[in-house]
Amino acid sequence: MSDREPPPGIVTLTTDFGTADGYAGAMKGRILSIAPRAAIVDISHRIEPQNVVQGAWCLRRAVPQFPPGTVHVAVVDPGVGSSRRALVIETERCLLVGPDNGLLSLAAREANIRRVIAVEESGADWRKSDSFDGLELFAPVGARLLLGQAPGEFGTEIDDWQKLETPPVERVEQGVVGQILFFDRFGNAVANIAREELDGTPSWVEVGEARAVRIHGHYAALAESGQEAETGGPRAGAFWNSDGLLEIAVYRGSARERLGLEPGTPVRVLLDRD
Amino acid sequence: MSDREPPPGIVTLTTDFGTADGYAGAMKGRILSIAPRAAIVDISHRIEPQNVVQGAWCLRRAVPQFPPGTVHVAVVDPGVGSSRRALVIETERCLLVGPDNGLLSLAAREANIRRVIAVEESGADWRKSDSFDGLELFAPVGARLLLGQAPGEFGTEIDDWQKLETPPVERVEQGVVGQILFFDRFGNAVANIAREELDGTPSWVEVGEARAVRIHGHYAALAESGQEAETGGPRAGAFWNSDGLLEIAVYRGSARERLGLEPGTPVRVLLDRD
Amino acid sequence: MSDREPPPGIVTLTTDFGTADGYAGAMKGRILSIAPRAAIVDISHRIEPQNVVQGAWCLRRAVPQFPPGTVHVAVVDPGVGSSRRALVIETERCLLVGPDNGLLSLAAREANIRRVIAVEESGADWRKSDSFDGLELFAPVGARLLLGQAPGEFGTEIDDWQKLETPPVERVEQGVVGQILFFDRFGNAVANIAREELDGTPSWVEVGEARAVRIHGHYAALAESGQEAETGGPRAGAFWNSDGLLEIAVYRGSARERLGLEPGTPVRVLLDRD
Repeated sequence: MSDREPPPGIVTLTTDFGTADGYAGAMKGRILSIAPRAAIVDISHRIEPQNVVQGAWCLRRAVPQFPPGTVHVAVVDPGVGSSRRALVIETERCLLVGPDNGLLSLAAREANIRRVIAVEESGADWRKSDSFDGLELFAPVGARLLLGQAPGEFGTEIDDWQKLETPPVERVEQGVVGQILFFDRFGNAVANIAREELDGTPSWVEVGEARAVRIHGHYAALAESGQEAETGGPRAGAFWNSDGLLEIAVYRGSARERLGLEPGTPVRVLLDRD
Repeated sequence: MSDREPPPGIVTLTTDFGTADGYAGAMKGRILSIAPRAAIVDISHRIEPQNVVQGAWCLRRAVPQFPPGTVHVAVVDPGVGSSRRALVIETERCLLVGPDNGLLSLAAREANIRRVIAVEESGADWRKSDSFDGLELFAPVGARLLLGQAPGEFGTEIDDWQKLETPPVERVEQGVVGQILFFDRFGNAVANIAREELDGTPSWVEVGEARAVRIHGHYAALAESGQEAETGGPRAGAFWNSDGLLEIAVYRGSARERLGLEPGTPVRVLLDRD
Repeated sequence: MSDREPPPGIVTLTTDFGTADGYAGAMKGRILSIAPRAAIVDISHRIEPQNVVQGAWCLRRAVPQFPPGTVHVAVVDPGVGSSRRALVIETERCLLVGPDNGLLSLAAREANIRRVIAVEESGADWRKSDSFDGLELFAPVGARLLLGQAPGEFGTEIDDWQKLETPPVERVEQGVVGQILFFDRFGNAVANIAREELDGTPSWVEVGEARAVRIHGHYAALAESGQEAETGGPRAGAFWNSDGLLEIAVYRGSARERLGLEPGTPVRVLLDRD
């Protein structure tokens, strides 16, 4: 690979559009029509329909890994067509484009926010029709940012944009009480309990109605776990995931189904007494 | 981004192959083996198996957004292995490659057709084996078009190729009667009723057995709709979508499931009397 | 398309991560952070969770089609976090990176193996954290191979790596007995019976409990098949697929569901007596 010439700009896409309807394809076409050398990278088009929380965590995981200068366009937008604003968020590392509903907020905070622009749509020369916003709003703004247009040209700086708030954990005598935030593709449950916020090294977790599972060093260790009485059952267990959050899983199975978990199911981490 | 050098050619893929079997991956590999600098863009590999109508509408939505010169390869092909022909369609804006079963017809018509070539396979030097047509027929033809080979080199011009016909609406005294054409990922139902073909500004739609839903300005307005008696239920409604077609939806839900709709379900648009 | 300059390196991805969680997106970002001009090609992120056999066949189908020098990164890894090794496999045509669990073995054998390296992780300068292996192990190794780093720099050559063994067929008086290996997206069943290993030209197959289906020349011929008594039912049949393996299908339907097949279901090919 030659590294002499400047890399083409990278724009990522994260939507809940699926692909079968052609909406995501139309966005790619519009971006390439504006920025023909754009390297378009799909992060996901499989966010659950209108699941802003899942989309925000998806971005939070993927965005920090991309090279400086990447433009991230995200559309999970239950408020499409209403008066919700569109945002361009400039961070130290990247630019994020999407609706003002919290979708961008976790990734943006992680990347150190410089300023947040509310896109001014009236009189914009990039909107060609009154079609869907992914095509007529988010795609062209992303493509023009990639071409070097400054974020400030799209609107004015604001403070009152919407952040996604993770519910706080509760500290109790024996440890902390949190809850299930979301599930990954395997049915593993991620809780709002961060390893670095704990004072001790816990070894047991209670999820839902008093099912106890052991905390293991890694996923594969679950294969041998849960043989003890009063546990979440064979191969159920917990571990600290790559984001430092507590994850409850069943080896080669779905913790969501096997343990009957939902978003919001309480999770208790019991600190060892020593 | 430097814009000095010519952009690499763009080839898009639209199939019902899914990705887990490696068929779509094999097509990408073959294209890159013939045209190493091709920018391959996935439109979809999630068309419902053998759903030519869904594939045609997906292409119809995405294709017009791509830059001039893009090559679009599409494979949704219930007749694979039979004697159905393969087509190269040259339009004013782009080239389309796929089976002669109507799949390309909606996008082609939209892009203004110049000529339609039936691919002559006997003696072709690009077919390396008797493997699947996506790999041995559509991918190499697409890649060679991208390299500049003329459509006419692949066969002879024809007129009797297959177009997908949208069922016509019926005009009745109070308005028009159409039907559900297909569903999008969210379960929204798209009907064959175009806004521009109506004489008035309707405000109510009957779908199926006399469920009436109100026509709103945009999707998000459905959040507050349907509280009236004798309606499609809470949050059900209709709006004109980005293609100008009538779309019936349930806010954050599936109209297909909630209203019991099928392709072909009758849809009546009642024109207001004034 | 200009072909003057060297093509950018191609790296493919095949995982069971799905896309909604951002794991696959994070891998792409990490690769582009190391090799900014990499052309990332998705083969699949929809391998069934932890289905190493399906992943291996997906790679086996797609990998041979890519240009020489392509780097293929694959992660279907039930043993993540355990002591299973990571491999770099150098073949005549390409480089493969992934876990040592058989996932790479079918594609590697097809591409003629030169040597197999067990990646030495201790002291590696490319692992930035103790995060998930797709991001911290497989992605950076793949990206560095793309930049020209030699496979041998990542570890030492080994012989005792894991190959996926296809169960052998049994030869009986009337023909051969094999079994269903896996299913494709359409529900077509692929068996471990290769056309080239048979002595005759069979015309009937028994699947499961004595359902007989006829072997046809191609998929589309199934539309007319199965009208005879004592068959697998209307439109059920078999044909030799593009890999030369026996495939049992139902025209526009799922053979898996309609015929009640499972991985391991016995398949008998009856040779014609003449």
